[in-house]
Amino acid sequence: MSQSRPVHEQDVVALAMQLIARPSVTPLDEGCQTLMAERLGAAGFNIEPMVFEDTTNMWARRGSQSPVFCFAGHTDVVPTGDLNRWHTPPFEPTLIDDYLFGRGAADMKGSLAAMLVATERFVAEHPDHKGSIAFLITSDEEGPFINGTTRVIDTLEARNEKITWALVGEPSSTHKLGDVVKNGRRGSLTGKLTVNGIQGHVAYPHLADNPIHKAAPALAELAQMHWDKGNEFFPPTSFQIANINAGAGASNVIPGSLEVMFNFRYSTEVTAELLIQRVLGILDAHGLDYDLDWTFNGLPFLTGEGPLLDATRDAIREVTGSETDPQTSGGTSDGRFIAPTGAQVLELGPVNASIHKVNECVRVEDLELLAKCYQGILERLLC
Amino acid sequence: MSQSRPVHEQDVVALAMQLIARPSVTPLDEGCQTLMAERLGAAGFNIEPMVFEDTTNMWARRGSQSPVFCFAGHTDVVPTGDLNRWHTPPFEPTLIDDYLFGRGAADMKGSLAAMLVATERFVAEHPDHKGSIAFLITSDEEGPFINGTTRVIDTLEARNEKITWALVGEPSSTHKLGDVVKNGRRGSLTGKLTVNGIQGHVAYPHLADNPIHKAAPALAELAQMHWDKGNEFFPPTSFQIANINAGAGASNVIPGSLEVMFNFRYSTEVTAELLIQRVLGILDAHGLDYDLDWTFNGLPFLTGEGPLLDATRDAIREVTGSETDPQTSGGTSDGRFIAPTGAQVLELGPVNASIHKVNECVRVEDLELLAKCYQGILERLLC
Repeated sequence: MSQSRPVHEQDVVALAMQLIARPSVTPLDEGCQTLMAERLGAAGFNIEPMVFEDTTNMWARRGSQSPVFCFAGHTDVVPTGDLNRWHTPPFEPTLIDDYLFGRGAADMKGSLAAMLVATERFVAEHPDHKGSIAFLITSDEEGPFINGTTRVIDTLEARNEKITWALVGEPSSTHKLGDVVKNGRRGSLTGKLTVNGIQGHVAYPHLADNPIHKAAPALAELAQMHWDKGNEFFPPTSFQIANINAGAGASNVIPGSLEVMFNFRYSTEVTAELLIQRVLGILDAHGLDYDLDWTFNGLPFLTGEGPLLDATRDAIREVTGSETDPQTSGGTSDGRFIAPTGAQVLELGPVNASIHKVNECVRVEDLELLAKCYQGILERLLC
Repeated sequence: MSQSRPVHEQDVVALAMQLIARPSVTPLDEGCQTLMAERLGAAGFNIEPMVFEDTTNMWARRGSQSPVFCFAGHTDVVPTGDLNRWHTPPFEPTLIDDYLFGRGAADMKGSLAAMLVATERFVAEHPDHKGSIAFLITSDEEGPFINGTTRVIDTLEARNEKITWALVGEPSSTHKLGDVVKNGRRGSLTGKLTVNGIQGHVAYPHLADNPIHKAAPALAELAQMHWDKGNEFFPPTSFQIANINAGAGASNVIPGSLEVMFNFRYSTEVTAELLIQRVLGILDAHGLDYDLDWTFNGLPFLTGEGPLLDATRDAIREVTGSETDPQTSGGTSDGRFIAPTGAQVLELGPVNASIHKVNECVRVEDLELLAKCYQGILERLLC
């Protein structure tokens, strides 16, 4: 460290550094959860490892009463990308000036460290807090998310163990710690469309049936469609074609099929079923011969006014002096798996400018501020 | 051979077998032209090899007067494809029942053998024929056709050496030898279109500009457009999109650009310039930001009524007892490079059912009939 800091400020950054030093690229955990479990156990938590296939998960809980406040997060990180473009080794946490560099610093090992230290401090001050505190930690949030949070939730649901409030540590802040919290997410629905035609030589078009020509008007209609107007909390539903492919490069061959992959990010004004019906209606109206496979990536959710949003707003205001802005924009998070159980779900974490990029970093001061916010939320909800 | 044939019938098939045994996949010649040159030299031809880059070409001419009758053809063959699907080794010419099997048997080493034997017989009977006989042979008709016939024609044009009539040996017949001759070809024009957008994450569509969405209505309009009605000799102009590509496979990324490759096969009712203007008009009307590269593969040409078509019709009728059908359909041939010099160009060759496929073959009897047709054309034009 470039300067001496008070001991209490070093708690969070020291733990973040210990976590970053473990190269836990999805679905690896590399001992991060063991480290967390040791400290949570010492703070009075019951630790329940839940390993599913290649994914390491942990459910830790202190107390048996309701309400249940749950910190949710992931120990896995995205791959490093081009190592030559990192100024410091990605798995050697490095402090330069006011920043901590390393893969996962902002997404989301810094948040995990802040959650854990905040909890230790809160429990030390309030050993007999109301309700329960829990940690739901996975090593597959950045990957296929098949054996991660969703399976832990399945396990909890099967024994009717409910989360009242979930605080996900995803890096929600945009310019300044706490300026944005995510109080919902759009749904995500992916379609893989194959339009079937008949291959042939361009010189004999009457013997072929060009799937690109057949599909173009339908794709144009899908691209121009207004799906809804959104609402107070959600932007309008968005349809985007992400991939389109036909042909093997020759200029004289009419391809036999066309592959199209598209994705919906949808508001609570529509449902996946409704979107599917409308897509099928358009494809059928254009007389296409097609196959279509759907992937349900997540339902939309929304956490409106209530104790969790109130507590979070107040804690952020107290710690940072600024108001927070609840938003539902952006990508998906594991909150989509927790919200359907009836839990209120919010996301609060560091500034996300460097996530998934080389030279990922987090302000050291923000880690401590984040821990203070998390502790403030616990105090407002469980005291 | 499965049965004894008269010596004169063996001339053509024997030479075809010698040519097929040379594995002259584009742009290789593998000594085919040397073999032809030896026999043409013995028949009184002046031989002029024309090697351009990787391509072996030959211009051979007997006589210095006009009119000039030119046999045009290629010694190169397309690749074999899957060897396991060949019943006989593709470069070991094999006679089974009435057929000669081998790569190039029909496209077009059989034609080369028939041209050469027909010429030998004609010259033996008419050593003082009118005008001149020429051979324009290349080893790059099946490939990029950059250093083949087009460069030989450039050389001839530069010294003002003109071809009056060209007979291209492309396999024009469909069911029976001589049932179809090609008396013209459509033009071919290829466009490589890049539609530019702005890459982004599907969760933030307002920060991106999806090139697939922008292009879809324009492509739909191009695909539905009627370009002309064709005419007595040509089918309507055809537009086909052969390739379309955007995206790298991820479902959450809006691609930054879209690549489209399309091809026109066009009649003499339009010009390449007119087609280009109309395409640009459509792309501009849709407000696209794009780059577009054009490749001019060949102008359309037509050989109407006249001495060459008359002589060919008569010769086919005499040899086969049937009428021939002049057509302009199908793919391109090197005739497109010869016709613009003012030459009349016809294509006559074996049945094309097996060309470019495994187990390519030609009827042995057809080779002899083809030689007789070629000789009959020479007799009608140069006696």
